[in-house]
Amino acid sequence: MSTHAFPARTTTQEIELGLTLQPKFGPDGLIPCITADAKTNEVLMFAFMNAAALAHTIRTKTATYWSRSRNKLWMKGEESGNVQLVKELLVDCDQDVVLLKVDNVGGAACHNGYRSCFYRRLADELALQLEFTASRVFDPATVYKKK
Amino acid sequence: MSTHAFPARTTTQEIELGLTLQPKFGPDGLIPCITADAKTNEVLMFAFMNAAALAHTIRTKTATYWSRSRNKLWMKGEESGNVQLVKELLVDCDQDVVLLKVDNVGGAACHNGYRSCFYRRLADELALQLEFTASRVFDPATVYKKK
Repeated sequence: MSTHAFPARTTTQEIELGLTLQPKFGPDGLIPCITADAKTNEVLMFAFMNAAALAHTIRTKTATYWSRSRNKLWMKGEESGNVQLVKELLVDCDQDVVLLKVDNVGGAACHNGYRSCFYRRLADELALQLEFTASRVFDPATVYKKK
Repeated sequence: MSTHAFPARTTTQEIELGLTLQPKFGPDGLIPCITADAKTNEVLMFAFMNAAALAHTIRTKTATYWSRSRNKLWMKGEESGNVQLVKELLVDCDQDVVLLKVDNVGGAACHNGYRSCFYRRLADELALQLEFTASRVFDPATVYKKK
C-alpha cells in the first residue's frame, strides 16, 4: 500500500462484519485510538491518528499518533524512550476507532510518569472528588528536557 | 450538583494532578468515553458523553452515553437489556477522556452481539485484512426489534 492509502468505506455489512480494514477518519482526518497493555488489557492512553500515523503504526509496529497540540506525527516515546511495541491492532464494529495492544517499554504511557493516563478515579460522587489509583513509574522532571 | 454542572477547568497543574473532577467537553459538548470490563480490563466499546450523560452515569451508576446518530441520551442496554453497571469511573491526565469500568449485564457490549466491539484484529498488514477474535454472545436479530 502507499503510505497513506486505506481501502474505501463500503457497505455497513462489509464494514461491520467483513474482513477488510476500512478505517473511518473524521472530518478532521483523525481516528480515535485506545491503547491498552497487551498482557493485562489495562487501558494506558487515548490519542488520535491520521492516516499517516495509522500507516506508520502498521508498518513499524510501533505506536505512532497525531499530536493535535504540536500538529505533527508523534512517535510515542521518541523523547522519553517509552515506546509502544504493537502486539495487536483491532478495530471496532463500525471501524471508526482503533485499539492497540502494546508492550509499553519502560512501563509508563503517561507524560506525568504514570503507567496509565487513567491514574485517578471518582471517589466522591457528590463532591466530584477524585483519588489516585497509582504511583509514578518515573519522575517527569528527570525524563523530559527542561524548557 | 445540578444535573449538568461540572467544576470549571482551572490550571494544568490542578487538572492533571489535582483531585477535582474537571471534565473537558469539546466544542460539540462531548467527551470521549472508553468502557472496559471491570473484571478483565478488556476494552468493550467507545462512545461519547455530553454533560447530561456523564451526570446521569455518575448519579445512576449505569453507563449512559450521547448517541450522535440518534441525537439523544442513550442508556446503554435500554433495548437489548445489556446494561452496564459502573464499578469505577476514571479520567485521564488532562481530563478530556473518561474510562468506565463496568459489569456488562448479559455479557455483550456490541450491537452486533459480541462481548466487545473490538472483535476483529489486523491479520495481514500488507493486504490490510482482518480476522475475527471472538464469537457472538447473542444474535442481534433476536435481540433487537425488527424494523
